Amino acid sequence: MAAVSGLLHEYGANIAQSDQYSTSIAGGTFLMRVVFLLPDLEQRRAAFEADFQARIAQQYGMEWSLHDTAVPKRAAILVSREDHCLLDLLWRGRRGELGLDVGLVASNHTDLADDVAGFGVPFEHVPVTKDTKPQSEARLLELLHGYDVVILARYMQILSGDFLQQLGVPVINIHHSFLPAFVGAQPYERARVRGVKLVGATAHYVTEELDAGPIIEQDVARVSHNDDVVALKAVGRDIERTVLARAVIWHGEDRVIVHDGTTVVL
Amino acid sequence: MAAVSGLLHEYGANIAQSDQYSTSIAGGTFLMRVVFLLPDLEQRRAAFEADFQARIAQQYGMEWSLHDTAVPKRAAILVSREDHCLLDLLWRGRRGELGLDVGLVASNHTDLADDVAGFGVPFEHVPVTKDTKPQSEARLLELLHGYDVVILARYMQILSGDFLQQLGVPVINIHHSFLPAFVGAQPYERARVRGVKLVGATAHYVTEELDAGPIIEQDVARVSHNDDVVALKAVGRDIERTVLARAVIWHGEDRVIVHDGTTVVL
Amino acid sequence: MAAVSGLLHEYGANIAQSDQYSTSIAGGTFLMRVVFLLPDLEQRRAAFEADFQARIAQQYGMEWSLHDTAVPKRAAILVSREDHCLLDLLWRGRRGELGLDVGLVASNHTDLADDVAGFGVPFEHVPVTKDTKPQSEARLLELLHGYDVVILARYMQILSGDFLQQLGVPVINIHHSFLPAFVGAQPYERARVRGVKLVGATAHYVTEELDAGPIIEQDVARVSHNDDVVALKAVGRDIERTVLARAVIWHGEDRVIVHDGTTVVL
Amino acid sequence: MAAVSGLLHEYGANIAQSDQYSTSIAGGTFLMRVVFLLPDLEQRRAAFEADFQARIAQQYGMEWSLHDTAVPKRAAILVSREDHCLLDLLWRGRRGELGLDVGLVASNHTDLADDVAGFGVPFEHVPVTKDTKPQSEARLLELLHGYDVVILARYMQILSGDFLQQLGVPVINIHHSFLPAFVGAQPYERARVRGVKLVGATAHYVTEELDAGPIIEQDVARVSHNDDVVALKAVGRDIERTVLARAVIWHGEDRVIVHDGTTVVL
Repeated sequence: MAAVSGLLHEYGANIAQSDQYSTSIAGGTFLMRVVFLLPDLEQRRAAFEADFQARIAQQYGMEWSLHDTAVPKRAAILVSREDHCLLDLLWRGRRGELGLDVGLVASNHTDLADDVAGFGVPFEHVPVTKDTKPQSEARLLELLHGYDVVILARYMQILSGDFLQQLGVPVINIHHSFLPAFVGAQPYERARVRGVKLVGATAHYVTEELDAGPIIEQDVARVSHNDDVVALKAVGRDIERTVLARAVIWHGEDRVIVHDGTTVVL
Repeated sequence: MAAVSGLLHEYGANIAQSDQYSTSIAGGTFLMRVVFLLPDLEQRRAAFEADFQARIAQQYGMEWSLHDTAVPKRAAILVSREDHCLLDLLWRGRRGELGLDVGLVASNHTDLADDVAGFGVPFEHVPVTKDTKPQSEARLLELLHGYDVVILARYMQILSGDFLQQLGVPVINIHHSFLPAFVGAQPYERARVRGVKLVGATAHYVTEELDAGPIIEQDVARVSHNDDVVALKAVGRDIERTVLARAVIWHGEDRVIVHDGTTVVL
Repeated sequence: MAAVSGLLHEYGANIAQSDQYSTSIAGGTFLMRVVFLLPDLEQRRAAFEADFQARIAQQYGMEWSLHDTAVPKRAAILVSREDHCLLDLLWRGRRGELGLDVGLVASNHTDLADDVAGFGVPFEHVPVTKDTKPQSEARLLELLHGYDVVILARYMQILSGDFLQQLGVPVINIHHSFLPAFVGAQPYERARVRGVKLVGATAHYVTEELDAGPIIEQDVARVSHNDDVVALKAVGRDIERTVLARAVIWHGEDRVIVHDGTTVVL
Repeated sequence: MAAVSGLLHEYGANIAQSDQYSTSIAGGTFLMRVVFLLPDLEQRRAAFEADFQARIAQQYGMEWSLHDTAVPKRAAILVSREDHCLLDLLWRGRRGELGLDVGLVASNHTDLADDVAGFGVPFEHVPVTKDTKPQSEARLLELLHGYDVVILARYMQILSGDFLQQLGVPVINIHHSFLPAFVGAQPYERARVRGVKLVGATAHYVTEELDAGPIIEQDVARVSHNDDVVALKAVGRDIERTVLARAVIWHGEDRVIVHDGTTVVL
């Protein structure tokens, strides 16, 4: 911390925000996120990065990266038929709340094409059947090339490990339950059968194992015996869109660090 | 509903509260809880019950029971070493918030004997080891005889199916996770490993299958990467005691009806 | 209750839901909402209403009304420039979640005209200035004629008592604070100055006195010193739209009864 | 930040936690809380403090203080007749959750003397009448001498500005409403009349102006028309004790910084 803030001070940077977390008091991994104002960053960036690498990162064995907050990340959204998460993201994007640029929406259905058009975002239809999954994933890889993050806004297809590896950027999914409860399909149906008194949603990074990736954000809402599956889904939609939006916003602000299968949100 | 309220009207009863739930709009089970004021209930009870049975219950194939709200249920509490749920229940009992009489606390440890004494409630020490479990359960059955409900306020022993059957009254347990997530032992440790962003607690009726009984109440609280297992447990204690207290109060008010492995809380 | 359910039984109606509330155990006002299935309601409605009035309502001095749930209420929305509440209502309406028909959006600005057009709902621009307020209100009265309820989805004009009286139907407003805290203008600015740790929103029926009408629904979200006014507003938007939607849905289902300056939500 | 972490580094301190907040990006007040491990602190404390003052605090015009986390603050509690906040604090203290030592409970009533005795904490009865308020406050000042913080755990007397000034240490109060709603007496009664859908509690530092001091923590719980004043108070008690406990714990950890009539909780 002294080294990083010292170098920033030396460069005349003004620290706007600084958050740290140590995975263990003694000998743990030290995680740090610093937001700073550095005049003329563009011209001085190369020198600063070289200095940072040579004088600090090497000494402390750091993994690090530098992002210009004026350059929002580029996001693509995959969606199937449910509109609530998609529209919420597009609205927030239009309002400037999202902090990243949505450059593409791709779907295995055409239902939401018109909605997306209204926001001036390109829409691509990439159908998937059991037999055409490899071709679909290949097509998606072409389309998703160049994006910094992919958001699954209720995309009801499982992405193969191979696809995730070739994609090479983080994928954020919204799962419609409070994980690890109700991993897999039909969580609301199973929540109803189990008689839970709260339903939830979980935004997580996608890994090859289904619904097992690092959790970014979760929330719940109260339900009762009066709520049948249709009602649970209606309650759940509000939680899903809010939880996904928070996770996406935090990811866009580089607040989320994955460590040991979990996330640290700084 | 017409039949029940009609008979009550005929008897001059004043309905204070009435709640209904139908498990299905057509052909489901109809559940109903009516609170009414009936002057001279004691003297007229036998006649009313006979009438109710003959004129209504038989016709509609009802299971029913009548409880005098002036006579609180008698409860016994089982506890191990954690004090938070126990003390909260005793404290609420003293304040008159609980709506049932706690007549006994039994524990497999002696740690909490003094606390219980301060509330003027009898305390029984019933140690359990792997080898003495049958004797312990036999002793508990003697002690618990005559109670209307048994509350497991962090009792860290699994009760056998045989014990439950012989006991013959409802047993309410507080599980320290948001079921069905983290069934079984060490839920906070597993919550930490999985990196959940909320921890919860679940009050449920005990059945032979571990942590699988009908859920009465649940709640959660927000946690973060900053919260180690010790911190998760501290947050959890507040949720556990509150959730258990709500479940016990509702049970004492005859609000909780078990149906098809779940509860309807009227 | 016996009388109402008895008559329904006599007509062969099947009670789907029944909720009651008595403002006082002895001598209070008894409020009741019954949802029932009555085959051939249309043909039998006149007879049923006459019977209900003659045999029940007169005897008990009831105020009552009968609504066909298959005929949704007609709603008009007034809005200024903020889109979040409006879009949320339109979106829920499209999904069939709202339970009432939005037939008109009127605004004192034109900013949201395109958004409204996308949902196929007529949009009317009714500008207001200090000098033209009477004419504006007159124009609104023309436009709002025939609607069952008017929703102020962040409409930043105070409606005159005269207007409300002539309008003659309920008006639901969303106020961007947890009333009665921060009545009036700029609640988020004042919340920031006061240093509150939660911000909220309140949906209420509009009365002549500013922000003093019967509260239908409220909710809050956690904020901190890190949240400046811009951040408070962003957090608040999510609460506002959710709280307003709940209030509108409940109103559409005839769940909300005004009594003595407050609401009973059955 | 660079200066502080640099000096700590120089002394071989290990930073365990560091939180910062700037009241304004440019030219605001910079607030910082650093928790560090410094071996042999006791022997080196004088030197470290002198260094810190001379090399850092003077240069940046800092107000600062250094607390040994191994030495908990000493707290005194004032209470009237309600037991819930008091008992919750004493329990948490016994469990080691509170992080400060409760050395005294003083009350204007004797109702809670036995409860306090059970925890081995001295209890002082300091009656107050309208006529004896000055003498009571004088007696309290004697008793409270030497404590680091005073906690009003539902103490239903207004402390004079003179008293607060002479006391000279922070006083934390729990107010039984979501401030600034329902400042002053009988908040639950007024909440019922206003028909709010949530009740809350607010922990704040006491200033001369009633219920206007800097807010440390707030929370709310959902209520409905079914909850009369007695029920609102029961719901409120759970919120009050939790909110007060959080505020006290944070204060004990030196997390709460008062700035401009509000608090920053680091």
